[in-house]
Amino acid sequence: MRTTTFDPKAYIRTVPNWPIEGVQFRDITTLLGDKEGFRLMIDALADRYRGLDIDTIVGLDARGFIIGAPLAYLLDCKFVPIRKKGKLPFETIGETYELEYGQATVEMHTDALSKESKVLLVDDLIATGGTLLAAQKLIASFDAEIVEACAVIDLPDLGGSNKLREAGLKVYALCEYEGE
Amino acid sequence: MRTTTFDPKAYIRTVPNWPIEGVQFRDITTLLGDKEGFRLMIDALADRYRGLDIDTIVGLDARGFIIGAPLAYLLDCKFVPIRKKGKLPFETIGETYELEYGQATVEMHTDALSKESKVLLVDDLIATGGTLLAAQKLIASFDAEIVEACAVIDLPDLGGSNKLREAGLKVYALCEYEGE
Repeated sequence: MRTTTFDPKAYIRTVPNWPIEGVQFRDITTLLGDKEGFRLMIDALADRYRGLDIDTIVGLDARGFIIGAPLAYLLDCKFVPIRKKGKLPFETIGETYELEYGQATVEMHTDALSKESKVLLVDDLIATGGTLLAAQKLIASFDAEIVEACAVIDLPDLGGSNKLREAGLKVYALCEYEGE
Repeated sequence: MRTTTFDPKAYIRTVPNWPIEGVQFRDITTLLGDKEGFRLMIDALADRYRGLDIDTIVGLDARGFIIGAPLAYLLDCKFVPIRKKGKLPFETIGETYELEYGQATVEMHTDALSKESKVLLVDDLIATGGTLLAAQKLIASFDAEIVEACAVIDLPDLGGSNKLREAGLKVYALCEYEGE
């Protein structure tokens, strides 16, 4: 029986005015950098997804790798990275999405999934949801199933988690910062 | 008793002429993307470092995160990322190193380590050793101890692992490609 109540916010640091004036950046390095916090975070997610026959963790470049890779180990899954454009060496498919200024492209190897794959999609943070929506499209092109998209933090004020739900994804985060 | 002999090369794919003509790129996504391979890789490294009182995994951006984060979980360590310039939100120290064309800078948070830290430094690949040498300098600025630098692959022909040993680091890789 797990008796510790895990509050991620007790470990997360807020850095004011980063990367630009007026933004309160939620910094998970203080959570990763606390061995109890790190373990409780991974256990909380692993407990949620155990027994669901998930066979693939898809992690988003780069902080999603830190959350997703331990989950792959604990849930006996393979690990698939979605990377920024130009980082994957084999044949890729890409998806381009809009940023506030300009565009970004994320890529996946063409042999990364199959239509039998049962995927857990993992990132650290849900903000505007652009990267996760692009990831959903990439995974959909394999006809693979996404069991859920999960993150450590959701920022619901930025609308990403709602947009993902409207796109048909199940979404989960360990904590959220709202109206702060 | 572990009865499986783990050969990482059986899972690693070679992509010819990537990122430039004449380079044989050793692609670990096929290792990460095989659940047995992924587990055996992490277990092999965890087995090597268990019982050495390591308390901190320092992982290098970004593939080092995929190897280092599961090790942090299994070895009951905290996880500290070394990131490319401009990615860390809090106060940082940086180290600049030479590339074939130009320079790169890696950074670490100023509160990431202490002089009591016992660190395992983790990346996916040792090539020319530039990033790992920069990481060593960053960690040395805390007076922290580096127990070993480890990777999945060493490319000894490129001289990095030798350079690291000359700089006083213990170095270990699960496999190497030499004269190929």
